[in-house]
Amino acid sequence: MTDIRDRVRCRALHGKIVSAAEAAAAIKPGMNIGASGFTPAGYPKAVPLALAEQIKKENFKINLWTGASVGKELDGALAEAGGIQKRLPYQTNDALRKLINNGSIQYVDLHLSHVAQMSRYGYLGGKVDVAIVEACAITEEGHIVPTTSLGNSASFVQSADIVIVEVNTSQPLELEGMHDVYVPADPPRRQPIPIVKVDDRIGTPYIPAGPDKITYIVPCDLPDAVRPLAPIDDDARAMSAHLSEFFMNEIKHDRLPKNLLPLQSGVGSVANAVMAGMAESPYENLTVYTEVIQDGMLDLFDAGKLDFASGTSLTPSPDGLKRLYANIKEYRNKILLRPQEIANSPEMARRLGIIAMNTAIEIDIFGHVNSTHIMGTKMMNGIGGSGDFARNGYLSIFFTNSVAKGGAISSIVPMCSHVDHTEHDADIFISERGVADVRGLSPKERARVIIDKCAHPDYQPMLHDYLERAEKATGHAHTPHLLDEVLSWHIRFMQTGTMKAK
Amino acid sequence: MTDIRDRVRCRALHGKIVSAAEAAAAIKPGMNIGASGFTPAGYPKAVPLALAEQIKKENFKINLWTGASVGKELDGALAEAGGIQKRLPYQTNDALRKLINNGSIQYVDLHLSHVAQMSRYGYLGGKVDVAIVEACAITEEGHIVPTTSLGNSASFVQSADIVIVEVNTSQPLELEGMHDVYVPADPPRRQPIPIVKVDDRIGTPYIPAGPDKITYIVPCDLPDAVRPLAPIDDDARAMSAHLSEFFMNEIKHDRLPKNLLPLQSGVGSVANAVMAGMAESPYENLTVYTEVIQDGMLDLFDAGKLDFASGTSLTPSPDGLKRLYANIKEYRNKILLRPQEIANSPEMARRLGIIAMNTAIEIDIFGHVNSTHIMGTKMMNGIGGSGDFARNGYLSIFFTNSVAKGGAISSIVPMCSHVDHTEHDADIFISERGVADVRGLSPKERARVIIDKCAHPDYQPMLHDYLERAEKATGHAHTPHLLDEVLSWHIRFMQTGTMKAK
Repeated sequence: MTDIRDRVRCRALHGKIVSAAEAAAAIKPGMNIGASGFTPAGYPKAVPLALAEQIKKENFKINLWTGASVGKELDGALAEAGGIQKRLPYQTNDALRKLINNGSIQYVDLHLSHVAQMSRYGYLGGKVDVAIVEACAITEEGHIVPTTSLGNSASFVQSADIVIVEVNTSQPLELEGMHDVYVPADPPRRQPIPIVKVDDRIGTPYIPAGPDKITYIVPCDLPDAVRPLAPIDDDARAMSAHLSEFFMNEIKHDRLPKNLLPLQSGVGSVANAVMAGMAESPYENLTVYTEVIQDGMLDLFDAGKLDFASGTSLTPSPDGLKRLYANIKEYRNKILLRPQEIANSPEMARRLGIIAMNTAIEIDIFGHVNSTHIMGTKMMNGIGGSGDFARNGYLSIFFTNSVAKGGAISSIVPMCSHVDHTEHDADIFISERGVADVRGLSPKERARVIIDKCAHPDYQPMLHDYLERAEKATGHAHTPHLLDEVLSWHIRFMQTGTMKAK
Repeated sequence: MTDIRDRVRCRALHGKIVSAAEAAAAIKPGMNIGASGFTPAGYPKAVPLALAEQIKKENFKINLWTGASVGKELDGALAEAGGIQKRLPYQTNDALRKLINNGSIQYVDLHLSHVAQMSRYGYLGGKVDVAIVEACAITEEGHIVPTTSLGNSASFVQSADIVIVEVNTSQPLELEGMHDVYVPADPPRRQPIPIVKVDDRIGTPYIPAGPDKITYIVPCDLPDAVRPLAPIDDDARAMSAHLSEFFMNEIKHDRLPKNLLPLQSGVGSVANAVMAGMAESPYENLTVYTEVIQDGMLDLFDAGKLDFASGTSLTPSPDGLKRLYANIKEYRNKILLRPQEIANSPEMARRLGIIAMNTAIEIDIFGHVNSTHIMGTKMMNGIGGSGDFARNGYLSIFFTNSVAKGGAISSIVPMCSHVDHTEHDADIFISERGVADVRGLSPKERARVIIDKCAHPDYQPMLHDYLERAEKATGHAHTPHLLDEVLSWHIRFMQTGTMKAK
């Protein structure tokens, strides 16, 4: 067992240091487990692995609530052990996804800003029974210093009967001081969130706990299972260039200040590429108010373009993680991690005027967005924080490649096979082909801009043809559709392997 | 011309009193007109009627922006004159609806909380050229005292080059003091909205203007064209009873305080019936934070159940209006009208913990909601404020009758033909049959609850059959659907006049 007594600075808690298996034994069938973690960052590892072993022996299930997706030692191990009954609010794990899509696991896909308050309100099937939180240290007073993410940890600790803290010695102690922990009171006693600038501190640098609140402390030395990002390709570079040009035009027309407004960027390779591309842009003194701080933002810091980044998770690639830890004393002055309830808060998105930048699986000609489902039925990951930001930001931008699967799928379709963001929530669509600015347009006006600016030339004639026939058949109704044809592209893909007509 | 000099208390402005036709002559082709009005309450009447005459003579079009729907003297007269190019953000007028659905008018259906800031940001095709605002008086300093609604008036006045004030002598002077006008600064200078209780006052009782800002003053004595509400029927009574029982259970389980939380209620007969039904409930010391104050809320005041109501519009029925005006000195201490940017603010909905209650045209088995489109193509009214409240409230409740058109249409369908609120935004569905509580449920769990609790018995077997076949065909995917059958109920209705299978 790694010696973690140096990191448990509250001596009264040394007696609560136990093995992962001993702590996991406190978890009983049907319990609601609230874990730290947001992307493969800051999630518990030792206790979940021990829990998976226990589940394999005793054959039972628990409900798993987290910040967002987590690493393989949590989602993967528990899914493979058959130990998850219900999972929320977001995931990206292959084993778990398979079980979600074969009816074995009940998955509840929630706006990430909603989770903490829903759990406190008692909406998710009881309250949190056990909180498992990764920490880099425990303070003299018994408070918990989180690691690379904050997620819903503070709220889960507040609500839980049993609190298990995994002190992870692979996480640098320099993370201490990078967190700003604030859990709002619940209505009718809730007050305004007192943030007016991205770097405002409003809470504590630790999760309030105290020696009585903590049940077990478990040592762990497994690092975050961060993953490499896809190399930045020509399409991503084109989208980034389109974005930069769009911003330039907004500034020219006095719709944005010269240093823009706080940027939010979704998770993944396209989002990362877009942020990285900003390093070559003319913009200075940028700020970020987002969920996840990825490599692209480190690039912006290193290029001297970015003044401050507020998020709920630090999730660089393996190379980025090395870079982060090598210069953590510099980065830590410019980065703050907040609970996702605050990072993704609609109140903050609207007040700060966040520029929301998220990726879509598919969009339709009238501006609806599918962020979650493949061919309308299979869950990919989840809506994540895209809705929190897209609905409430100053600008709501969605990125998508014009085609997928080597051109067999058009990402611009007559009607989305699942809608996560409605026509009321998107301002700008960007594909590698161009920028569709649909602000202030009616559905029929939007359709022509989206087809002409974002769709692939292989599909443009088919989309125009659909629109024209739908207009004629409906007498130019507000949203012209041919209901018997509207999902035929998806059906054709499933039957023939391509959305292209013969 | 009615003598309005008593009501124009700023003597310097007496010289700007002109006829409606003289003021309307300032409006040129292609201009963006920002008008007061939210429901048939507080909208300008004389100038629009004069503008319609001018348009008939000179044959041109303008773009019309309002708070929400407005009365026939504005929407009806301009639509019938063929004078509207673009209309936003909400409407309920028959003549206008017809032109929206035949391609003659471009209609932009927006979240009502978004409109004012979008117009200030310059997202709607330029800024407001002319503001036309109904007033009951002009103060000594030249500020505008609004009438029965506030809507977007303050923001429109702030942005407009030309400001026309219609002083309406049919509106009682006792309305003065019922408004709380606050226009937030735009990012990056926006501050928290400093409201923590429904009755907090944060602004001025008038729209700031001053003698230089006002271009013309026009007298008017046409009353608001308020409309009678449908009589409360058995279905509405049943929904109201279900709601009351649901609240009781929430209180029992400590998920709601005994006086509930601030209530928001949509517009129309069902919403009104639900509120009126609360007068017979055991709940006391209720509060309301909503858009529109209808008869049902006057009933609650009269029953001593309601402490305070904050809204953006006062829209009783003709009988209710008489009741309101007869007792206005009492009601005015318990009612506040705010800009819709504040009334519908996501910041406020989430902080206050609003109970959002809205009506749906149709819902699907997985919990998506269509609030706007008939059979997926024809615009009915618009999304209004339902999204502002449903996304951000403490509880998001949608009401729908289980069937429409005498049973020929099931309001619960396999897939909505248009999605305005996604599965991520609804907690509770109530039909006359019962209450479906879908909090914390996966799509497949939700489907069974919605079918069993809310669907009409005539359609329950068909819905179960669809769900089971979809589960089998997709291997129990996260959201099981048969894409080639998913909209077949709508198609069947259009072909045969009923959704029922032969």
